Amino acid sequence: MAFLAREIIKKKRDGESLTPEEITWLIQSYTKNEIPDYQMAAWAMAVFQNGMTTLEAANLTRAMQHSGEVVDLSFIEKPKIDKHSTGGVGDKTSMILGAIVAVNDVCVPMMAGRGLGHSGGTLDKLESIPGFNTQLSIEKFKQQLRELDHCIIGQTKNICPADKKLYALRDVTATIESIPLICASIMSKKLAEGIDGIVLDVKFGSGAFMKSKAKAKELAIALQAIGEENGKKVTAMLTSMNQVLGRYVGNAVEIWECLDILKDPSSHKKYEDTVHLSLALSAEMLRLAGRAKSYDDGYEIAKTSLTSGKAYERFEKVCFAQGGDLNKLPKPYDPFDVLSTKNGYVSSIDVEAIGIAGIQVQAGRKKIDDVIDPKSGFEVLVKVGDKVEVGQPIAKIFAKDKAATEIASDLLRHAFHMSPDTISTDALIAETIVSTRG
Amino acid sequence: MAFLAREIIKKKRDGESLTPEEITWLIQSYTKNEIPDYQMAAWAMAVFQNGMTTLEAANLTRAMQHSGEVVDLSFIEKPKIDKHSTGGVGDKTSMILGAIVAVNDVCVPMMAGRGLGHSGGTLDKLESIPGFNTQLSIEKFKQQLRELDHCIIGQTKNICPADKKLYALRDVTATIESIPLICASIMSKKLAEGIDGIVLDVKFGSGAFMKSKAKAKELAIALQAIGEENGKKVTAMLTSMNQVLGRYVGNAVEIWECLDILKDPSSHKKYEDTVHLSLALSAEMLRLAGRAKSYDDGYEIAKTSLTSGKAYERFEKVCFAQGGDLNKLPKPYDPFDVLSTKNGYVSSIDVEAIGIAGIQVQAGRKKIDDVIDPKSGFEVLVKVGDKVEVGQPIAKIFAKDKAATEIASDLLRHAFHMSPDTISTDALIAETIVSTRG
Repeated sequence: MAFLAREIIKKKRDGESLTPEEITWLIQSYTKNEIPDYQMAAWAMAVFQNGMTTLEAANLTRAMQHSGEVVDLSFIEKPKIDKHSTGGVGDKTSMILGAIVAVNDVCVPMMAGRGLGHSGGTLDKLESIPGFNTQLSIEKFKQQLRELDHCIIGQTKNICPADKKLYALRDVTATIESIPLICASIMSKKLAEGIDGIVLDVKFGSGAFMKSKAKAKELAIALQAIGEENGKKVTAMLTSMNQVLGRYVGNAVEIWECLDILKDPSSHKKYEDTVHLSLALSAEMLRLAGRAKSYDDGYEIAKTSLTSGKAYERFEKVCFAQGGDLNKLPKPYDPFDVLSTKNGYVSSIDVEAIGIAGIQVQAGRKKIDDVIDPKSGFEVLVKVGDKVEVGQPIAKIFAKDKAATEIASDLLRHAFHMSPDTISTDALIAETIVSTRG
Repeated sequence: MAFLAREIIKKKRDGESLTPEEITWLIQSYTKNEIPDYQMAAWAMAVFQNGMTTLEAANLTRAMQHSGEVVDLSFIEKPKIDKHSTGGVGDKTSMILGAIVAVNDVCVPMMAGRGLGHSGGTLDKLESIPGFNTQLSIEKFKQQLRELDHCIIGQTKNICPADKKLYALRDVTATIESIPLICASIMSKKLAEGIDGIVLDVKFGSGAFMKSKAKAKELAIALQAIGEENGKKVTAMLTSMNQVLGRYVGNAVEIWECLDILKDPSSHKKYEDTVHLSLALSAEMLRLAGRAKSYDDGYEIAKTSLTSGKAYERFEKVCFAQGGDLNKLPKPYDPFDVLSTKNGYVSSIDVEAIGIAGIQVQAGRKKIDDVIDPKSGFEVLVKVGDKVEVGQPIAKIFAKDKAATEIASDLLRHAFHMSPDTISTDALIAETIVSTRG
């Protein structure tokens, strides 16, 4: 069926709902370059201003999912469960939970992203392991999932081409921050992986895309509704990004943290939040997969898989299968200590500023084609509520040169806010919105 | 000063007001093709959804006015007053009032438009006079104004290039119907003419762009505020387009109606509404020019100028100066009578449908490059409230061929709605919003 782009824009402009046929036609035509960017930009702004119903957003998601290749994992009979995070600083749970869940007879097909702006990306972190290839073909992806129940790759260019085009357009037309458009972008890519269910780590706080918990919850509810409307089991956890997750921020340094956690249970105290969030997300993934009776049961199973070393074994196999040599993981540059200039308690941390400081030392990227230096990054030595004295190191910087170190050091020092009084910290996992599909 | 287009879009998206500098930069950059259409489309949709303050719209108008050539008429010391209509069917007042006002020592510089869709255009009507040249250079325009106080031309391509680009973009992105964007488009072109004041004929009803009087009033108030913010005297008249103005619709046929009115006062009864509206608009133009003490005074002066034949003389001179030969004005095609199929009173007329029927006989155009046939058109024989009997002619069609005549005949027949009861008609001039600048 053929429609007129102008009429579809007009309907959305006037706050009406679009039919599934209109949405499908719009996305297909845009993907085929039959609708120009300027019409899509006007449409995106109309969506931004007037929103979409859950049904519309679900249809948009499906249309974007089917704009390119959809991975068919139906040959795998076991449950296929993924995790997605809305992005943060120091978030390295994928490298831990993927292996934990996979050793419990669940298939974990992951298509991950790169870091941009203040937030890091799983692909960049994995690629700090020499030889690790994230650009596998879909055939190799399937083969590895068959053999190891786990594989982490980047999206191939055939996955959701509509999303790639639309996202680039939204970026320059101030239409990024629209809940239905964000949801469709995230969920279309996840649905294209061929999964049965997903656990969403929706972050809020100073280091998150959504600064307020209320906004994050709105996003979480919308993501869940859209995923479930498309027949998937979706649980969303609202988690705090008011602190860096764990201690390390960067690429190789974050893999070092993961290896510590995977290989040495005695390190878990040191990385308490990374471990807890990894186990919590694993627990819910196992529950959705039917491998745990409850979240608590899943948490225990996950803990056993981690502390027994089984998860490490699987992670090692995954790295090896994808060409990565963990023995050659680079050591970080020599550390430079950032010292506190105040006495008091850490009252809050501007986590986004820490992420931005990461760009200065090439641990992150400002533009999509910036090059990452795997050996740089930070170690954050204090958490909110910690008592700090003048002259005490609050962070370490690993950077190639002095100039970058100095800029980063200044940014980091300002990212930690002090108070004379003790502070109570908020919970890492603020709320869980459990899948309605069991 | 340099801005980021994305940040300007974002501000407007979030309902904030743009500064004069931001607006000027946006329009200048867009005119120079330094901002792509997709960013401008998102911005236009954000304006559509969130509106603009009068000050913003006035700044937008001025930025668009100065995007190209601005005609400098400062060498003419007498007042320079124009009229603008928002477009209708059978509206031929420009050809009458321009001459009336000019003979009263007022300069009337007119840059007119072409017909599109259901509404006709002054340029098309004038060009049905063989030889009439509407594409004069600005130099010739100025020279004729010096000699005859009146000249009617099309916009040169250097006038408001930003408006041309933006209008074409709005047309395909469903952002036409935005009051501030409509106002800026209309007023930027009028300000670029170098006028001191303007009388706006803002039409409402079935044949108008704005169907409701309330919407037309909103537009009228905004147009006036923007014009006056830019230092011009602006009066807006709200006039009914629930009937065809006068009797003829087309091009040469409308000029014939004008010639009747200009040459023969005994015809005024027959064209009562065309005459009244022409005199009323002239009256207010004369008042704004300081050539009449009051509207009533202006009306009397205008009437005298018309009935004395002085206005005709001036119109003839204008035609001659622009190369037009009134003696060669083509006669319409042989008429075909559209007969009523009902008894009763005309209760309402779908004037837009009559305009659309005009496209069928090539009296109007659907696309900007459609060719007009000057000899075709309609004569509308009945007004709202008239008693009609089965078989009585309600309209005449002048068309080149039978096929077009048949389609138009069917459209016209359906455009007249009948009722068994008598109907009261609404006033031609519903309301006048008088210039606050005297």
